[in-house]
Amino acid sequence: MQKLVKSLEEAIRLAGLTDGMTVSFHHHLRNGDFVLNMVLEQAANMGIRELNVNASSVFDCHTPLIGHIKNRVVTGIQCNYMAAGVGSAISQGILEKPVEFRSHGTRPRDIACGKTPIDVAFIAAPAADPMGNCTGKYGKSACGSLGYAMADAMFAKKVVVITDTLVDYPLQDFSIPENYVDYVVQVDAIGDPKGIVSGTTQITRDPVGLVMASHAAKVIEASGLLKDGFSFQTGAGGASLAAAKFLKDIMLEKNIRGSFGLGGITGYMVDMLQAGCFQSLMDVQCFDLKAVESIRTDPRHREISALHYAAPSARGSVADNLDVVILGATEIDTDFNVNVHTDSNGYIMGGSGGHTDVAAGSKLCMIIAPMFRARLPIVTDRVNAISTPGRDVNVLVTQGGIAVNPRNKELKQRLLDAGLPVTDIQTLKEKTEKITGVPQKLVRGDRPVAHIIGRDGEIQDTIYNVVK
Amino acid sequence: MQKLVKSLEEAIRLAGLTDGMTVSFHHHLRNGDFVLNMVLEQAANMGIRELNVNASSVFDCHTPLIGHIKNRVVTGIQCNYMAAGVGSAISQGILEKPVEFRSHGTRPRDIACGKTPIDVAFIAAPAADPMGNCTGKYGKSACGSLGYAMADAMFAKKVVVITDTLVDYPLQDFSIPENYVDYVVQVDAIGDPKGIVSGTTQITRDPVGLVMASHAAKVIEASGLLKDGFSFQTGAGGASLAAAKFLKDIMLEKNIRGSFGLGGITGYMVDMLQAGCFQSLMDVQCFDLKAVESIRTDPRHREISALHYAAPSARGSVADNLDVVILGATEIDTDFNVNVHTDSNGYIMGGSGGHTDVAAGSKLCMIIAPMFRARLPIVTDRVNAISTPGRDVNVLVTQGGIAVNPRNKELKQRLLDAGLPVTDIQTLKEKTEKITGVPQKLVRGDRPVAHIIGRDGEIQDTIYNVVK
Repeated sequence: MQKLVKSLEEAIRLAGLTDGMTVSFHHHLRNGDFVLNMVLEQAANMGIRELNVNASSVFDCHTPLIGHIKNRVVTGIQCNYMAAGVGSAISQGILEKPVEFRSHGTRPRDIACGKTPIDVAFIAAPAADPMGNCTGKYGKSACGSLGYAMADAMFAKKVVVITDTLVDYPLQDFSIPENYVDYVVQVDAIGDPKGIVSGTTQITRDPVGLVMASHAAKVIEASGLLKDGFSFQTGAGGASLAAAKFLKDIMLEKNIRGSFGLGGITGYMVDMLQAGCFQSLMDVQCFDLKAVESIRTDPRHREISALHYAAPSARGSVADNLDVVILGATEIDTDFNVNVHTDSNGYIMGGSGGHTDVAAGSKLCMIIAPMFRARLPIVTDRVNAISTPGRDVNVLVTQGGIAVNPRNKELKQRLLDAGLPVTDIQTLKEKTEKITGVPQKLVRGDRPVAHIIGRDGEIQDTIYNVVK
Repeated sequence: MQKLVKSLEEAIRLAGLTDGMTVSFHHHLRNGDFVLNMVLEQAANMGIRELNVNASSVFDCHTPLIGHIKNRVVTGIQCNYMAAGVGSAISQGILEKPVEFRSHGTRPRDIACGKTPIDVAFIAAPAADPMGNCTGKYGKSACGSLGYAMADAMFAKKVVVITDTLVDYPLQDFSIPENYVDYVVQVDAIGDPKGIVSGTTQITRDPVGLVMASHAAKVIEASGLLKDGFSFQTGAGGASLAAAKFLKDIMLEKNIRGSFGLGGITGYMVDMLQAGCFQSLMDVQCFDLKAVESIRTDPRHREISALHYAAPSARGSVADNLDVVILGATEIDTDFNVNVHTDSNGYIMGGSGGHTDVAAGSKLCMIIAPMFRARLPIVTDRVNAISTPGRDVNVLVTQGGIAVNPRNKELKQRLLDAGLPVTDIQTLKEKTEKITGVPQKLVRGDRPVAHIIGRDGEIQDTIYNVVK
């Protein structure tokens, strides 16, 4: 059996890719990824048209997608996140069919249950052997976990592994085993390491960010959840990382032995593991080199699939066992609905990722955001797009006060008892608008450019085209 | 979400087990397993009847099955191996429907493709957390790899984990993740450690065994396959282990840096890993405590699923990449067909396990067996049951000579050139019969008691009832 083929063209041909099929990609190489572009370019050169692209995320490095959309090489997109480069073009209406946004948990669930079948999965693999055993832990383009690629590998009709580091058979420390893989292609480079992982992720030095981070840590301390067995997820944003730093100090001071850290993992979470704050890290994606080094060498740092991470299911996921998560927002409304899909002008520049999943699964979902950005208030009457429903959001932390979702009376009392600056979200909105003024209401078009699919599988919200 | 239930009865009820369904079990606890018996007894007590039991193997500890068959609690059996205890009863015709024998590779393939669907999988787990993350590496009943249980977990409609070592969530070093598990039951003991793994597996001291082992090692040396990158599998029988020991000496002497050891893993294979003969062990099952310790602590020793190990598939398996395997036989015929299912009296006392798979996948499949056992010759005109077709068997090694399959002319020449005692299988048969006499032909009944399903999914042979 010979899986190693001479070229990407041969792999595409052998995989039987033809007009109208669905191809899939993972985003572990993030803004350094070469693979999505190289596959679509090759498909375009082979005259293949009307592909449906199911990519876990679309980054700014993927702006060649815009040309492929215009040439009808690509006529459908499903993703969990779309950066502004492609996002703003989508918002201008270049794609006839609305983009389907899912979350990091619902994407693999819908692949697994057959709702969004994949014809050919292209797996960017930082190291692979000639039979397709592959991993993200080694190689010049090492990215750590391959958690988002696993459902693609398991359920796609054909699976093509693309690597720039071919190792002897068998790659013992495989993340995806050969029995899922049809073809292996070796290329010069699957990505640009500078775009794949940050050298280091940095905590904020901004005073506003530090105030928010301090509040966030105190909210967690006051919540009653910070005790032995505590579990935690946070994003890679500067204020979130600062909150993790403050939280670590509290945990060490109080000698609290947490259980696990979850998520996209940064060096700061690795520090907490090494300091004894957690017993393990459950890692679906590595954000920086320290996380990559840790998942490669520390058996307490475990790679998990996106299904295991966050898929909505009767059997649950790690997200469903999470105590506290700190998340961001571009907008939050007075019903606590959060928008992370569009900017304040209505242009697509993000997406849920795991936001919606861990908000739903965690005991305490905290949004941390400044009161305003570029004179636009964070709190609005109604978000432009509901990424995460307000029922799953417990508290908003800003530099100007902490607003608790009225559903969470006990939490509000705990924060008040702890002397924290609790306010209500309407008051916070008004307070902000005194500084910024009341922003003009966004005038949006009447053409749907994207649907946001909720965790229940139904359309949760629709994003319309932008009218200049 | 609460997966931890109070009793096995509750788990069976919640899993919806009713008359006529299929239940599945793995055999990593081997002759120490309590779980198959405890589940069937509970089901019987609950009045459930006509169950189909899909067990990767049935051991002598499972003789209570005989009573369940007689009471029609169990009316169908699928397995890859059946020891003499239940096997002799089956051979006497106690089960109306013929047993279906598969191999360690075809069983998970048929589960995965939906040919043999499982309603409820019961997974004996030496350690598990309350959400069902589980492993065989830890706990008082530690068995090492859970490779044979993985397809059951992935594809069964309901999955019940049964453990005697419940650990805090999350069990970081999981083999089967929680997202496959519906219910978790804690019991006092899932097995008897004395029957699960041997303290040590022993190489033979029998002079005949040592002669065969020495021949076996020399055949490998002469085959042309023993060079850098060499890969190897052997069983846990005394002569096979002695062959591994001799092989290790040759590899160290010649400074040959092999690639991987495969299979059911013994301490002898661990020794070869540690001595540098292999770079990794790919482990679907641990045979002794040293192997369990190694898979728990040595990252070069990797757990693999039975699908990855040996499933027949266009995508291949590790078995398909294997150089040399040493296997046993109860009979081998002049067409090199091997029987490991029945004894010389026609009673079921074994099964393929991985025999058929690695014979098909390897470059060199060697059968090692004494010329006769209890005055019954090993070579016959026609085996009582074809476990592994002769086309996949390359050479038979006995103390009285080495017979090469006529399909393998190059191999025969290599062995002759090396001065090994090459003979042909007909001559070996006649030579043996001069010692033992010609055995009486077995008179078998006309009622099928078992079908052996080949790797192509078709019935490869049928085992009939025994007539006294």
